[in-house]
Amino acid sequence: MDFTELVQTRRSVHEYSDQSIEEDTLQRIFKRTTLAPSGYNLQPWEFVALREEESKERLKEVAYNQDHVVEADTSVIVLGSTDLTRHSEAVFEDWLAKGYLPNNDVKESLINNVEKMNTMSKADKRTWTTRSTALAAMTLMFAAWDEGIASCPMEGFDSEALVETFDIPDEYEPVMLITLGYPAADTSDIENERKGRRPVDDVVHYESFDPSSETTLLDPSADN
Amino acid sequence: MDFTELVQTRRSVHEYSDQSIEEDTLQRIFKRTTLAPSGYNLQPWEFVALREEESKERLKEVAYNQDHVVEADTSVIVLGSTDLTRHSEAVFEDWLAKGYLPNNDVKESLINNVEKMNTMSKADKRTWTTRSTALAAMTLMFAAWDEGIASCPMEGFDSEALVETFDIPDEYEPVMLITLGYPAADTSDIENERKGRRPVDDVVHYESFDPSSETTLLDPSADN
Repeated sequence: MDFTELVQTRRSVHEYSDQSIEEDTLQRIFKRTTLAPSGYNLQPWEFVALREEESKERLKEVAYNQDHVVEADTSVIVLGSTDLTRHSEAVFEDWLAKGYLPNNDVKESLINNVEKMNTMSKADKRTWTTRSTALAAMTLMFAAWDEGIASCPMEGFDSEALVETFDIPDEYEPVMLITLGYPAADTSDIENERKGRRPVDDVVHYESFDPSSETTLLDPSADN
Repeated sequence: MDFTELVQTRRSVHEYSDQSIEEDTLQRIFKRTTLAPSGYNLQPWEFVALREEESKERLKEVAYNQDHVVEADTSVIVLGSTDLTRHSEAVFEDWLAKGYLPNNDVKESLINNVEKMNTMSKADKRTWTTRSTALAAMTLMFAAWDEGIASCPMEGFDSEALVETFDIPDEYEPVMLITLGYPAADTSDIENERKGRRPVDDVVHYESFDPSSETTLLDPSADN
């Protein structure tokens, strides 16, 4: 689908049809997801895709009993590694092999940089991994909708319970959940008027930052 | 542009041509950016767009002297508000007006929920705002490339110095920088072989999480 149409028609949908997602469709969606950029190309993202009823029921329990977690064909736990060094050697070796780096010394100094960055606080690492992982999450939602598959990003879940239920190692930050499925016919999620958006004039500031003190919301489909 | 082509051809580019970006093109890009989803539709994002030489020079000083910050037509400071309540009343009023909420009591309880969430730690708030703001940042990069405008996301900058230089209030988290410009002809950023990506089989885990202990990188343009 043309990107303009894609971005203008993507909605957060939590009412799904019974149509299941083909495995190769899911594969294509995740392949495109991996094309997202990330800090130093370190790709900290991991996706736990729950398709079996029992797995989705377990997720529902830690997601404040929200039904669409089970009703979705696939519910995805989006995780980000807080260990910056996890893929750094392989990544910088790739940069060297493809001519992005002039020599091995520069590669070694980049590996050292990332090792130094890895000493930052746990809080900073959570922010670091959330940043790149969310770039991939947005790409996932666009790639899904491009295949006619609607999504609903969720941050409403009990992170500690999720980690325990799914045996997530301490290194990984649960960044969000994303439910995926073909939308139910005539769902109000799509039929309802779109939720308002803050206008460009309020969110974009030229040359200096002057946040607006009031909130205006406009119809996002209007030409403004 | 078709999304498949868009996601497959988007590259991080830091060599730009002299062609300037028309104001209405920039306006269209930011309009699409605002269509990104966010937690509770709270839209914590703010964009400081630097187009004047002097502003970009100031940014370069806090961005480890990276030349492309100045060479780009527009360098964007992407900020996220850590005050969850900033837009909540207007947002839930919009939900009520459009039938997303059954009555005023539910609206009030959502406003209260967000007020409670707003008591979380500063570290948690930074992660919260980074999540939604990065979703918008990815949308911005796709919307730009859809107009033929390349981007380079950057997390390498001195956050404290940036906050001081641009008088950013304490409430706002600098999430990343994004440089924007038409790509230079024959830039190696586009001509070079794409950087490797972790394969789908390594990053997607079905039903339970079993992180791979080794890093494999594949050519992202290959059919895998």
